[in-house]
Amino acid sequence: MTAARPGNNLKAELAQFKRRRIREEASHLFYRHGYEGTTIDAIADKLQVTKPFIYSYYKNKGEILYDIAKLGITLSLEALERCLVIPGSSWDQLKLVVDEVTRIIVENQEYIVVYLREEKNLDPQQARAIREQRSAFDHRLAEVLASGDAVGEFRVEDPALTATTIGGMMSWVALWYQPGGHWSEAEIITHIIRSVERLVAVRGRQEAAPAPRR
Amino acid sequence: MTAARPGNNLKAELAQFKRRRIREEASHLFYRHGYEGTTIDAIADKLQVTKPFIYSYYKNKGEILYDIAKLGITLSLEALERCLVIPGSSWDQLKLVVDEVTRIIVENQEYIVVYLREEKNLDPQQARAIREQRSAFDHRLAEVLASGDAVGEFRVEDPALTATTIGGMMSWVALWYQPGGHWSEAEIITHIIRSVERLVAVRGRQEAAPAPRR
Repeated sequence: MTAARPGNNLKAELAQFKRRRIREEASHLFYRHGYEGTTIDAIADKLQVTKPFIYSYYKNKGEILYDIAKLGITLSLEALERCLVIPGSSWDQLKLVVDEVTRIIVENQEYIVVYLREEKNLDPQQARAIREQRSAFDHRLAEVLASGDAVGEFRVEDPALTATTIGGMMSWVALWYQPGGHWSEAEIITHIIRSVERLVAVRGRQEAAPAPRR
Repeated sequence: MTAARPGNNLKAELAQFKRRRIREEASHLFYRHGYEGTTIDAIADKLQVTKPFIYSYYKNKGEILYDIAKLGITLSLEALERCLVIPGSSWDQLKLVVDEVTRIIVENQEYIVVYLREEKNLDPQQARAIREQRSAFDHRLAEVLASGDAVGEFRVEDPALTATTIGGMMSWVALWYQPGGHWSEAEIITHIIRSVERLVAVRGRQEAAPAPRR
């Protein structure tokens, strides 16, 4: 944040913190009881706050769902744009994207599952906005695949379809990953990077080393 | 069916037909309005039958959901077992499995989406039974990968993780496929077969020809 007055900053930070906590608890409840089975009262109870407190941060339950639903794709698009300006080969860039986005999916698993389950409960315009962001992600990813194919680095017959499948390979993790389960986050990320490497048939190099830990 | 008395057969066929139609219309409604937003009355209305008619085929709404939820995995497991007894290399078998299961997923897309969205509304024991079937599928698939790896036909470091990812690549299609959309069923099946071929690093052969149409 760049505002000059620290007092204003703290206020904004606190508001953001409160919104995040509301979103987190709402997500737990949506995950366990479904969107329709969760009331604003239940969310307020969880946080031991009043209903008007919730309403001062979110207009209604639908706005909380929208905030949850857009989180995964917003972070993924930001990561994608960040990775694609780093100089390197198409594979260097793609590897970074897959690493970061798989991590985002693992770490925001519950939000992504809630989105996939509850998309039909979103306001249609908001649902469309998220779908457009998802398309934009696939489209940018397809461009990376097409560039890599054009310079002979990858072998990708249908970049758009392959981008969708790579998106699916990453997103699917949200539907089965269990924290503390058989595979660690790092193992899963490494597996997805290696799988994508094979999928795009990266030429003239050994398979990727395990993803660096940051 | 092998029963000797044709009269009994027709009766059973009709009962099956009615159950299928109830399941279909219920699935459309669950897909559009969610499980909780759909009443037995609404399902009866759609079929222009009475509520007691529905109850003579399904004990309650939960039983309809269970019937919908288990369909995709039941068909997929049957296809898997059918493909694995056909003589051939590991890749011959795997290719057949991917072909058949991706087709099942495309053709039962709505049921699969309803399952993924509404799993939390299943009776816990029934949800567990389906999860066990899904694990059994992944486990059998991992065995095929491990056999192919053992004879040097594939190169698969972690058969269980790779089986999960292949399951995800196929299942993800249910979440984006649009009948009459940009890609045909045959194009998608061919794409998934080729992707799996690369993923398991099939040795010593050209990439798969397009899936045969049956």
